[in-house]
Amino acid sequence: MSESQTPSWLHFDWARAERTGLPEAVLACGKSVAQLAEIVAAANAREAPLLLTRLESAPAAELLGALGELAAEIDYDPVSRTAVTGRQAARAELDGTIAVVAAGSSDLPVAQEAVRSLAYLGADNVECLVDVGVAGLWRLLDRVELISERRVTIAVAGMEGALFSVVAGLVKGVVVAVPTSVGYGVSVGGQAALSSALASCAPGVVTVNIDNGFGAACAAIKMLRSPV
Amino acid sequence: MSESQTPSWLHFDWARAERTGLPEAVLACGKSVAQLAEIVAAANAREAPLLLTRLESAPAAELLGALGELAAEIDYDPVSRTAVTGRQAARAELDGTIAVVAAGSSDLPVAQEAVRSLAYLGADNVECLVDVGVAGLWRLLDRVELISERRVTIAVAGMEGALFSVVAGLVKGVVVAVPTSVGYGVSVGGQAALSSALASCAPGVVTVNIDNGFGAACAAIKMLRSPV
Amino acid sequence: MSESQTPSWLHFDWARAERTGLPEAVLACGKSVAQLAEIVAAANAREAPLLLTRLESAPAAELLGALGELAAEIDYDPVSRTAVTGRQAARAELDGTIAVVAAGSSDLPVAQEAVRSLAYLGADNVECLVDVGVAGLWRLLDRVELISERRVTIAVAGMEGALFSVVAGLVKGVVVAVPTSVGYGVSVGGQAALSSALASCAPGVVTVNIDNGFGAACAAIKMLRSPV
Amino acid sequence: MSESQTPSWLHFDWARAERTGLPEAVLACGKSVAQLAEIVAAANAREAPLLLTRLESAPAAELLGALGELAAEIDYDPVSRTAVTGRQAARAELDGTIAVVAAGSSDLPVAQEAVRSLAYLGADNVECLVDVGVAGLWRLLDRVELISERRVTIAVAGMEGALFSVVAGLVKGVVVAVPTSVGYGVSVGGQAALSSALASCAPGVVTVNIDNGFGAACAAIKMLRSPV
Amino acid sequence: MSESQTPSWLHFDWARAERTGLPEAVLACGKSVAQLAEIVAAANAREAPLLLTRLESAPAAELLGALGELAAEIDYDPVSRTAVTGRQAARAELDGTIAVVAAGSSDLPVAQEAVRSLAYLGADNVECLVDVGVAGLWRLLDRVELISERRVTIAVAGMEGALFSVVAGLVKGVVVAVPTSVGYGVSVGGQAALSSALASCAPGVVTVNIDNGFGAACAAIKMLRSPV
Amino acid sequence: MSESQTPSWLHFDWARAERTGLPEAVLACGKSVAQLAEIVAAANAREAPLLLTRLESAPAAELLGALGELAAEIDYDPVSRTAVTGRQAARAELDGTIAVVAAGSSDLPVAQEAVRSLAYLGADNVECLVDVGVAGLWRLLDRVELISERRVTIAVAGMEGALFSVVAGLVKGVVVAVPTSVGYGVSVGGQAALSSALASCAPGVVTVNIDNGFGAACAAIKMLRSPV
Amino acid sequence: MSESQTPSWLHFDWARAERTGLPEAVLACGKSVAQLAEIVAAANAREAPLLLTRLESAPAAELLGALGELAAEIDYDPVSRTAVTGRQAARAELDGTIAVVAAGSSDLPVAQEAVRSLAYLGADNVECLVDVGVAGLWRLLDRVELISERRVTIAVAGMEGALFSVVAGLVKGVVVAVPTSVGYGVSVGGQAALSSALASCAPGVVTVNIDNGFGAACAAIKMLRSPV
Amino acid sequence: MSESQTPSWLHFDWARAERTGLPEAVLACGKSVAQLAEIVAAANAREAPLLLTRLESAPAAELLGALGELAAEIDYDPVSRTAVTGRQAARAELDGTIAVVAAGSSDLPVAQEAVRSLAYLGADNVECLVDVGVAGLWRLLDRVELISERRVTIAVAGMEGALFSVVAGLVKGVVVAVPTSVGYGVSVGGQAALSSALASCAPGVVTVNIDNGFGAACAAIKMLRSPV
Repeated sequence: MSESQTPSWLHFDWARAERTGLPEAVLACGKSVAQLAEIVAAANAREAPLLLTRLESAPAAELLGALGELAAEIDYDPVSRTAVTGRQAARAELDGTIAVVAAGSSDLPVAQEAVRSLAYLGADNVECLVDVGVAGLWRLLDRVELISERRVTIAVAGMEGALFSVVAGLVKGVVVAVPTSVGYGVSVGGQAALSSALASCAPGVVTVNIDNGFGAACAAIKMLRSPV
Repeated sequence: MSESQTPSWLHFDWARAERTGLPEAVLACGKSVAQLAEIVAAANAREAPLLLTRLESAPAAELLGALGELAAEIDYDPVSRTAVTGRQAARAELDGTIAVVAAGSSDLPVAQEAVRSLAYLGADNVECLVDVGVAGLWRLLDRVELISERRVTIAVAGMEGALFSVVAGLVKGVVVAVPTSVGYGVSVGGQAALSSALASCAPGVVTVNIDNGFGAACAAIKMLRSPV
Repeated sequence: MSESQTPSWLHFDWARAERTGLPEAVLACGKSVAQLAEIVAAANAREAPLLLTRLESAPAAELLGALGELAAEIDYDPVSRTAVTGRQAARAELDGTIAVVAAGSSDLPVAQEAVRSLAYLGADNVECLVDVGVAGLWRLLDRVELISERRVTIAVAGMEGALFSVVAGLVKGVVVAVPTSVGYGVSVGGQAALSSALASCAPGVVTVNIDNGFGAACAAIKMLRSPV
Repeated sequence: MSESQTPSWLHFDWARAERTGLPEAVLACGKSVAQLAEIVAAANAREAPLLLTRLESAPAAELLGALGELAAEIDYDPVSRTAVTGRQAARAELDGTIAVVAAGSSDLPVAQEAVRSLAYLGADNVECLVDVGVAGLWRLLDRVELISERRVTIAVAGMEGALFSVVAGLVKGVVVAVPTSVGYGVSVGGQAALSSALASCAPGVVTVNIDNGFGAACAAIKMLRSPV
Repeated sequence: MSESQTPSWLHFDWARAERTGLPEAVLACGKSVAQLAEIVAAANAREAPLLLTRLESAPAAELLGALGELAAEIDYDPVSRTAVTGRQAARAELDGTIAVVAAGSSDLPVAQEAVRSLAYLGADNVECLVDVGVAGLWRLLDRVELISERRVTIAVAGMEGALFSVVAGLVKGVVVAVPTSVGYGVSVGGQAALSSALASCAPGVVTVNIDNGFGAACAAIKMLRSPV
Repeated sequence: MSESQTPSWLHFDWARAERTGLPEAVLACGKSVAQLAEIVAAANAREAPLLLTRLESAPAAELLGALGELAAEIDYDPVSRTAVTGRQAARAELDGTIAVVAAGSSDLPVAQEAVRSLAYLGADNVECLVDVGVAGLWRLLDRVELISERRVTIAVAGMEGALFSVVAGLVKGVVVAVPTSVGYGVSVGGQAALSSALASCAPGVVTVNIDNGFGAACAAIKMLRSPV
Repeated sequence: MSESQTPSWLHFDWARAERTGLPEAVLACGKSVAQLAEIVAAANAREAPLLLTRLESAPAAELLGALGELAAEIDYDPVSRTAVTGRQAARAELDGTIAVVAAGSSDLPVAQEAVRSLAYLGADNVECLVDVGVAGLWRLLDRVELISERRVTIAVAGMEGALFSVVAGLVKGVVVAVPTSVGYGVSVGGQAALSSALASCAPGVVTVNIDNGFGAACAAIKMLRSPV
Repeated sequence: MSESQTPSWLHFDWARAERTGLPEAVLACGKSVAQLAEIVAAANAREAPLLLTRLESAPAAELLGALGELAAEIDYDPVSRTAVTGRQAARAELDGTIAVVAAGSSDLPVAQEAVRSLAYLGADNVECLVDVGVAGLWRLLDRVELISERRVTIAVAGMEGALFSVVAGLVKGVVVAVPTSVGYGVSVGGQAALSSALASCAPGVVTVNIDNGFGAACAAIKMLRSPV
């Protein structure tokens, strides 16, 4: 069999990270363990922080095995399926400005991806509420003061995604909706929740792709930082 | 041009009405004014009550013109696009057991189709709340005691349809969701609201077709009547 | 690897159960065995009944292993993929009022989820007919007297879902359609059966999500109980 | 403005008609009145029979005006939206072998397109039943002996299309399903009826495109003729 | 664990087979091996022929193991994934009247399901051409005389399904299109081939569900038999 | 004909406006001119500012006619299809912080809806670039310094929506994507542009519903205001 | 009413035309007549050639009226809905290298859009065959020598789009498929033809958007020109 | 079990290869290892070159094992999942005329399928750039001179597919877009990238099926060769 010589073709986007202020992140699913190990090694050589998302437990174990000593630098979380080396310094202006709310415990992996991404990007003191779906509205109403003054609320929900509109009607800040692929039948794959987010009757809701907790975190950071 | 001889082919289902206890109703859209006039005349000849749904203003005017003296028997409502001749006697067991709630004023035609259908089928004292969408949750919470003890609540909503889950979490009775085609972009045609109804995280929600206020009324009547 | 500390985030909705009269139920798929074990333990500690749905055989075995002595309390049924601890007391007003009919033997898991859920919620003497699809119409016509006077009929069908309209034309009670994901080609995933339920030409049909036997049972109970 | 010179590009398929035994037919919608007039004139010049389908009333009137004396040869039917000049001689082997059943009176245009196409193609004595939808099953059961011995039954239905499976379970011949675009919400455009036809649990159902009464007639003729 | 008592619920449709002249067939996928073994035993007890479709190799081996001595009666073909016990006597009127053509070798399993189903239903001398896709049109044109006089041609194709229209333009008999799930990208699952079959510009094409070789065989038999 | 008494059912959400700091806005399409006139009169009576969106020219003319003297208060713009009475006081912290870029001149109505909404909500000095689609990349690159330091960029594009990712890769602030329904074939209705926005490979892009320039404006204002 | 000042925002892409060698073209649908008149005037001022596509007859008449004397410069063709001022000089290397084939006469507008676009871009002697759909295969086979040696064949088809694969199997050059929106039922809007083009089993087929005759012409020109 | 005798049915298209100048290629997925081994043996017997695509590592290993000595002739590449025996002689007119660009490293398998297919078909000196997605536009702009003068650029991208329009705006040659199934949520399966390619605002983009690197290579070769 021939050996495919891919490494020489890769042009990793280190410059983007420097340009936009967001340190590098890589979507692990769809990449081979060999590609991931090469990327981690390159980040380490540059002493650059790195976030891997969508890294399932099995390839994570393989990757850690392949990295040898470098594995000790990696903080892997199986719930959110994220691995981190290093992070940005905590930033004062981001402290306590963000909340994450999730409708059900099945939405926890995506919510935790958002929380871990926020920490990696420099945001501390993120309020996180899980299992506050609208079927039991009191769970949300009882805790609404914890989030109502936050500047950004990341709302995570699958199924029918009613949480997005209800939260947006209760808080003053912007709501970043993260539809999840939790559900079955008409909600399988997250389409029902996604369309609920986009069609929300409450002004001030914006949306990211299904299950994209990382993207919501990036957007939240960009909303809160001054670009100049 | 040849004359098509359709009337002799029609087998109107008068027996179904007698068999199931629901008097006859006809979906007007997709039928010619000539067909509708023939149906009204047949109902009149049998002294049977009749409900026409989805009858837009223009064909309604044409129909009334075509009916001549019979037109005086027809009660046409342009908002709900329904026409009625006669109705069932009011039934005691249906009195005050049903509520209709609608998210926005654009959902009014469908909500009113449900209310008019319920009246036609014998249900009086239907509580009806419009413009109580979840973006302003207090509008619903302030009035929830009006509907919370009703045995059936018909919830009417387009856009993202968050109303269905919120109502089902607040009331004890069954919730019949009627998604509407109100909306644009991802909610055009009512698909977003429909999938919200079906995927609702609140147990006890059942659904009918998009814009089908009449079907919701029939189901509500069937839920409340004893079949024996 | 870091340990994710999810338990402290969970806000299980015990209050909803008390508020609506429906004891607690949990969708097992999408949750880890550790989460499920924690939920069962919490229910046991409160002496609360609990129903788990969508619990496949493999995670069920894992869960029973993880529960230790508690496992003896669990009644697991592999056909319906449901596990139960305790149930509501049987209620007189629900006795003999409900029928379940299923088109084919492949629809049995969903039909049995409905039957087991009804038993858990307090309904005894549920008539259950399986393999009465419309391709052999006499199978249904021969048994129609068994269901025609029931107040609620839960109809379960995949493929093209013609059963929903046929049953609704034959019985006096309300029909709750449960489309199933049984089928292939255009009916894969249950979309063909779902649209047949929603578009039914027979008034009085309401629908729940694909494969949602539990939801149909909850709706049936709500239809038959007086909320006051 | 330049004059586009399309006529010289057209290569009408007169040979196909001769080759397959089916005389020529043209889908009128999507063609200009000028194109249609040219086609009719060409058919007349060859003394060939011709069937135009999907010819709405307004362009039909324009066409007849444009044809001058030739208009007297045209038999236009506004219900089925078909225009015919001439027909094949009636064939003994097709006599009394075909039935057409339609679920509702809104399906009449498509059913009549099938009946008119069958007559054009040489089939006499076609049994035609309209308004026999399954919501009132007795209407069909009372007349089933009229169709049960026919070799081919063309079944025409919109909405949820349950008629296809019910008919196929009752008759011995083959069933050609013609889904119609009659309906709203999930059945708009005919997709729900189409998937019901394709997913039918009854063996021996075949399907043509939505609203394609002409195609069903052609297939029926081909099934009944010996090609050699 | 509780034992689910499904057998007593089953109402197998032996009567349908006697009524329609088509011996019994069962879709194996979606049924448990225990259900299948029970069905085979019941057929054997009645000395009835039986066809199982969609029976993959692994459950087939399990089933044969579970059947013990009965296994010797079963003729299993792994390519078409069909198992047969017994068949109808060959019928003279079906001999040599049917052809099966398949676009590519990946369509072979579905084509062979059709051929095996036809044999089971009594049709001998079925002409079968595989790998005659339109990309190399000569392959089909060179063999067209083998099929052009057959009364029914079952055409099997995935990808873009151009074969259906080309065959229908070349033969005089009716064409039963069987779209297959062969393909990727826009043709994954068979939707592209299905819509090509339904939208065919050639009159006289009828369609069955994706991958439904058995259904095409049943329809072909019904087309060729006299029902009286 | 009966008079439908809708006004008494309406519960306009004046409180929401006061609660969230966003003055009232109403989606005009789907409402009757009578409903709109009543809403304008109510706003005028409260001396509240009001924004009407999706108000086409014909109903706008009808509305102005129906309002009589009140019409002089209304500023109607036919390009953006918006009507305004009053606005919020300009806010210093919003000045010069927002840019709007649109891919083509066909996207102008949606872009202008965003600009007019921003002005209504208190944001002055909004940079607006139109006709900077990526097919001629230099148009955008030449002007990128005008937007690169803005805190929020609203990007408006139909067709394939490549603009969203390109802008997000060039600017430091957050990008709010507004897909438009500009296009044909696969991009008709805006689905292609919507999925491009959601699937963007550039972190920091958030999305609103198709053609929802008003929603993007609301989100931008919420991102830039401090809620406390 | 306020006057919207859009002209100053427009940045027409004259540079793109100069850069890529393709003179300017504008999609007329979705633009106002005022915008179009301004664009034509700007082109005239620069003495630049211009092609307007998707210009229906009604706005074309309005536009010509608005242009005054400039109207004499415009060559409008109502079949292809294109308007042209000027063209590129005919290029020797494009002469006789391109063919256009269309399945039916309903596809003529799109085919003619391609032919007119090719002429505008400098290609003379384009072979054009219309009404050569595969249902009558001989029509294409009889003329195949006219196109088999052309370097590029633009194939235009709606319905099921079988033409694309058949042509690609017969000619040596590349085939550019243009699916059209001709059809009804499953082929409405052109999706069936589009997926046939993309899923074609014949190697060497490439596709453009539905009804995009102009795009196919541009691609053909680019394929045949040397860029250096 | 019966042995299915498929080989005698196969009609491999060796003539097509000779007729069109493209040597033979076979889509491996969906075929059994036995079928593949038979095809390789047949090619070897004819001394014909052969390309297998979509051959995953596991069946590749099985195939090599089944081939015995013939395995030494096969060059298998696990990244592109292609196997090759022999190739066409390099052709001077194809040398250095083609570029391949891929948005991300996850798109590498498809890009490499294109490169390997091009080499098999006789094109040397193909410029290949990977990881040049538009989120970091400089990566592409810095290398644009490497591709801007190539006659054909094959652009490979998943996610939102913005690369297609950006490349087409920068280069003079034709762009063949290959959407990939890389992505999640709305871009799962490649639909978002596909619609971006088809709806591209840049003239001169043509598209092949999702993940079809081989098809893009065939089209590129056909564009560059003279057919006469």
